[in-house]
Amino acid sequence: MADLRSDTVTRPTRGMREAMAKAAVGDDVFGDDPTVNAFEAYVAELFGHEAALFTPSGTMANQIALQLVVPAGGELLAGADAHVVTYELGGAALYGGISTRTWGSEGAALDVERIAAMIRPAGYPSVPTAAIAVEQTHNLGGGGVIPLATLQHLRAVADAQGVALHCDGARIWHAHVADGVTLAEYGALFDTLSVCLSKGLGAPVGSLVIGSRERITRARLIRKRMGGGMRQVGILAAAGRYALDHHIQRLTEDHERARIIAEALAPYGVVDPEQVRTNLVPLDLSKHDLDAPTLTARAAERGVLISAMLPRVARLVTHLDLDDASMDQTIEVLSELLA
Amino acid sequence: MADLRSDTVTRPTRGMREAMAKAAVGDDVFGDDPTVNAFEAYVAELFGHEAALFTPSGTMANQIALQLVVPAGGELLAGADAHVVTYELGGAALYGGISTRTWGSEGAALDVERIAAMIRPAGYPSVPTAAIAVEQTHNLGGGGVIPLATLQHLRAVADAQGVALHCDGARIWHAHVADGVTLAEYGALFDTLSVCLSKGLGAPVGSLVIGSRERITRARLIRKRMGGGMRQVGILAAAGRYALDHHIQRLTEDHERARIIAEALAPYGVVDPEQVRTNLVPLDLSKHDLDAPTLTARAAERGVLISAMLPRVARLVTHLDLDDASMDQTIEVLSELLA
Amino acid sequence: MADLRSDTVTRPTRGMREAMAKAAVGDDVFGDDPTVNAFEAYVAELFGHEAALFTPSGTMANQIALQLVVPAGGELLAGADAHVVTYELGGAALYGGISTRTWGSEGAALDVERIAAMIRPAGYPSVPTAAIAVEQTHNLGGGGVIPLATLQHLRAVADAQGVALHCDGARIWHAHVADGVTLAEYGALFDTLSVCLSKGLGAPVGSLVIGSRERITRARLIRKRMGGGMRQVGILAAAGRYALDHHIQRLTEDHERARIIAEALAPYGVVDPEQVRTNLVPLDLSKHDLDAPTLTARAAERGVLISAMLPRVARLVTHLDLDDASMDQTIEVLSELLA
Amino acid sequence: MADLRSDTVTRPTRGMREAMAKAAVGDDVFGDDPTVNAFEAYVAELFGHEAALFTPSGTMANQIALQLVVPAGGELLAGADAHVVTYELGGAALYGGISTRTWGSEGAALDVERIAAMIRPAGYPSVPTAAIAVEQTHNLGGGGVIPLATLQHLRAVADAQGVALHCDGARIWHAHVADGVTLAEYGALFDTLSVCLSKGLGAPVGSLVIGSRERITRARLIRKRMGGGMRQVGILAAAGRYALDHHIQRLTEDHERARIIAEALAPYGVVDPEQVRTNLVPLDLSKHDLDAPTLTARAAERGVLISAMLPRVARLVTHLDLDDASMDQTIEVLSELLA
Repeated sequence: MADLRSDTVTRPTRGMREAMAKAAVGDDVFGDDPTVNAFEAYVAELFGHEAALFTPSGTMANQIALQLVVPAGGELLAGADAHVVTYELGGAALYGGISTRTWGSEGAALDVERIAAMIRPAGYPSVPTAAIAVEQTHNLGGGGVIPLATLQHLRAVADAQGVALHCDGARIWHAHVADGVTLAEYGALFDTLSVCLSKGLGAPVGSLVIGSRERITRARLIRKRMGGGMRQVGILAAAGRYALDHHIQRLTEDHERARIIAEALAPYGVVDPEQVRTNLVPLDLSKHDLDAPTLTARAAERGVLISAMLPRVARLVTHLDLDDASMDQTIEVLSELLA
Repeated sequence: MADLRSDTVTRPTRGMREAMAKAAVGDDVFGDDPTVNAFEAYVAELFGHEAALFTPSGTMANQIALQLVVPAGGELLAGADAHVVTYELGGAALYGGISTRTWGSEGAALDVERIAAMIRPAGYPSVPTAAIAVEQTHNLGGGGVIPLATLQHLRAVADAQGVALHCDGARIWHAHVADGVTLAEYGALFDTLSVCLSKGLGAPVGSLVIGSRERITRARLIRKRMGGGMRQVGILAAAGRYALDHHIQRLTEDHERARIIAEALAPYGVVDPEQVRTNLVPLDLSKHDLDAPTLTARAAERGVLISAMLPRVARLVTHLDLDDASMDQTIEVLSELLA
Repeated sequence: MADLRSDTVTRPTRGMREAMAKAAVGDDVFGDDPTVNAFEAYVAELFGHEAALFTPSGTMANQIALQLVVPAGGELLAGADAHVVTYELGGAALYGGISTRTWGSEGAALDVERIAAMIRPAGYPSVPTAAIAVEQTHNLGGGGVIPLATLQHLRAVADAQGVALHCDGARIWHAHVADGVTLAEYGALFDTLSVCLSKGLGAPVGSLVIGSRERITRARLIRKRMGGGMRQVGILAAAGRYALDHHIQRLTEDHERARIIAEALAPYGVVDPEQVRTNLVPLDLSKHDLDAPTLTARAAERGVLISAMLPRVARLVTHLDLDDASMDQTIEVLSELLA
Repeated sequence: MADLRSDTVTRPTRGMREAMAKAAVGDDVFGDDPTVNAFEAYVAELFGHEAALFTPSGTMANQIALQLVVPAGGELLAGADAHVVTYELGGAALYGGISTRTWGSEGAALDVERIAAMIRPAGYPSVPTAAIAVEQTHNLGGGGVIPLATLQHLRAVADAQGVALHCDGARIWHAHVADGVTLAEYGALFDTLSVCLSKGLGAPVGSLVIGSRERITRARLIRKRMGGGMRQVGILAAAGRYALDHHIQRLTEDHERARIIAEALAPYGVVDPEQVRTNLVPLDLSKHDLDAPTLTARAAERGVLISAMLPRVARLVTHLDLDDASMDQTIEVLSELLA
């Protein structure tokens, strides 16, 4: 099977498994795991922040961060198609008591002036805005990359209005590689970030939430309450470190492959290759006969796995475990189905 | 003082006080108050629904309704400037565990196709949409009235997609009078409605949530948990009944006065009289030197009370207790301040 | 019908209705109702506190107070039979995120040393205790009165451990009359209190939460979020003031009548008259053939209304609206049913 | 250092690391990880249930189970010293909206009649009881084992009253070994169980929640919302399977060692060896000069790590990684400190 459902399907490489097998470990709930401690410090430093905390998933990293920057009863601004709004099962409201007011589904094409106009200051009878969340790269936005200048503009707006900025950076590594912006440059723009190790980077499990020491101290308590306090986490942190050391630069390969697929499918009017900047290839089926579940089912019958994200949106993801034969098969099968 | 901050400032008239003074009462938590029982039945019938429940405020009526139509962890679509999103202090998320995804701040100018496109069906990894809320008339939308045809279109969309529709009808009486649509016609379009007695209708306290018998039975439990179970409610229901019997048709007077104010202030570029259809006069100060708090403070110094809704939005409201002298004073003072 | 289900069934007297009919009112959400403002100040002073806030129900007053003294995620200690644990539909957990750890169902017979031993200080991996709630008089404890010395002991424990004390004082007036302790003496012992006007005092609607100015400022926001922000509240506050002025001392009459009923039913082994200190008469049916719902149903058939609180606990309540004939009927009917 | 703080400090053995290194894996969020799928099925079968779900921690397994058996707004009965009440940071209330009513701190010495009397049926104004939680073995209860007959009695009570039973079985393996009751016998008594792999069993990470297929299907959604949806979980599941295959029977060794320590410390009046049935040795310092933090700090200075659970309760835990020298050192140091 050619599996392009997500880059989360990547399996640990031999080298990564070796790193895991020999990792020194301890009880992380007691703060005693040397591998995760060093890893958290390393990631914090990469992004120029004081501290970081390992979590079992990107959803938990995001949810912790939102609870850090928005008090219960407070308001978060985010895109209507943000992962925190769309794919985290309503956790922000149900667990964090956080209200969301959303701008449209423009993916990475942020309209900063519009966002600025949405901010509601304290001192009025309305709920004051506590934070803004953006997503880099943007999942439902087809892997789009928010330009650095846009983020800097947004940071200036946030500073002027006194609201916090969170970055759902599950795939921020892809933005870094695609735009040549350093992780520290990104880090400097946000109060909190989440980053994920188990997507394109190929680690089996894990994300981190990144921020100030004070926030990460609180994050530790929230993680425990959410059930994310694990013990000998060094096993997983070792894989994460291996991924950072070996799998960031090679993402360019995934990006090129995504572009190749997009160009092959462009004739069928479902994707604009110019918009495919990283490893996600969104297929817009709004004007096509096939809806996303049907296309997905038919492709699966022919050995190609893709995802139906919404009724008329399917998605292909390139990654570490995809070989040339799978690439060929994917293009062939989808071309025939979309023709 | 000319008090145009809100129609909630209206005080019970002599006739209303007499109705309250002689109301038969009982313990409503036990279901024994004859006046509130009859009143709830009457209001339900007005809107063509099976049942209704008296609540101490419009916020509680809305919050109960949202908990009825959206399960904890589920999603509500609403306007970014809806009362339930803006002025209820985040209760939907904090108490109901309800996520909100919002369309823009277009007030009563609903774009039904856009809303339809926002609905997320079950069967995808995203949070499915459980309900849509609209507001009639629309408070932050300057008292605008959603046209009946628009609501019918929205109902058809909701039916096709299997989502519920809630109407925040705090000022639905104004829409009824402005557009000549019967309350039953409005009622037929929604799964749940909230209506308020203590705004333009002039009752001292009270709102109702309206819906099916099954929903209102559940509403009674939620009301108790929220602290809205009151005892000899007949006192308040009698005022509500008096208000419905005597104060609906006279709302046209408030609408005319709002229009008069709007026309007087139109030369200063802060309001379009054509948009003033009911009793709210929004002042858009986005291009004016004065911001809303400053204008509000200066008007108050000269005996005219208005509201600063947002940094650049002020609001005047006409109502039952406003006399001719207050009208003149309001126009004079604001004209001078805005000149 | 002789209605002894609760003292909440009391209806406003003629004098109270007159006070309501002529009350000066304003919009309390704007802080403009003179009657409620004066009333809140008066009640705060009665209890020696800085401020008080009117709420539509005792449940809301309690829930607001709990949210004031226990942070979300924090812990409250209370009796297993406390009103806040038993009759408020789980609001503390669902709306306040408050965990309860409970001592037994001993009603007013507090074991202060045992409570002291339950307190968990900060600095351990366990959830630290934020507050303790007691109930005066104690509803499921058969209207029992916690002795002043016991409360003073508890206050000393709370001070030593740094936890807050809340009093659910829905019927604290009864304790005041029964034990001759002043309201200010009670007030001095608690960080927050709730008191109710619509039980034995005979007002139609209303409770208050009492505390420091800082806490009551926060309470106002919580009340709004819970849907308790009402408008011309002076109507109800006037009834409350009338009740405080005229109906406190007469509670002794209710207490005497409760004792008379208890003595009449004592021969059937369901109640110990010595334990009946205020206006509640609990019937312990644990050794009787009839369970509470059956006894309640049979008494109702013969014109006497009582409450089934739990499967084997029924309750009678004496109050303002009970006349001599009802007393006689109650004793006759229950004596026959229990014989 | 002799580390007796907890059995969670155990590190994976060489054999376990090998099992992890060669585990077949896939994306478990898609249900594609063969190792975790087989492992979940295996554990479910061990306990005679239909299904099981891997979670990153025991806290998450418990919290998911509580959300499965108690609706938001509903009530759970548990011991005041239960892990779910004491050590999960209030998650049941804050995230699940679950109220707890607690019996005393009797550890494993359940008084079933008393628990039965606490259950509140539906049909009364009080919050109905949805479920009861017990803990086997009991952590704050000094590793005590609830006798099978007691649990069977409790099951009968639960069935008669229509409430669910949850077992926090983080250390149920210890009860199994201590009392010779099979895991299936335990499984048959509960609607849901949680079990932990990373305590005495020595796996680095992981717990499971066990129950009916319908419940575990819902559990999968809750786990995702709580942030417990991990990807190549087979790495961790392989360790879990190795632990079940190799580390259950050897727990008897830990139990013997705990008894040896208890006997050595008994002369100082802090522990009754007869009560030490599994691998926990609680030290009751209520009559001792040293409090728990002081004893813990002094022992640490001399190379022995133990836990301060509460101000006057310390705890030692024996486990897989403890060698003979550490045993000797522990006994020597603590004997001197307690003398």
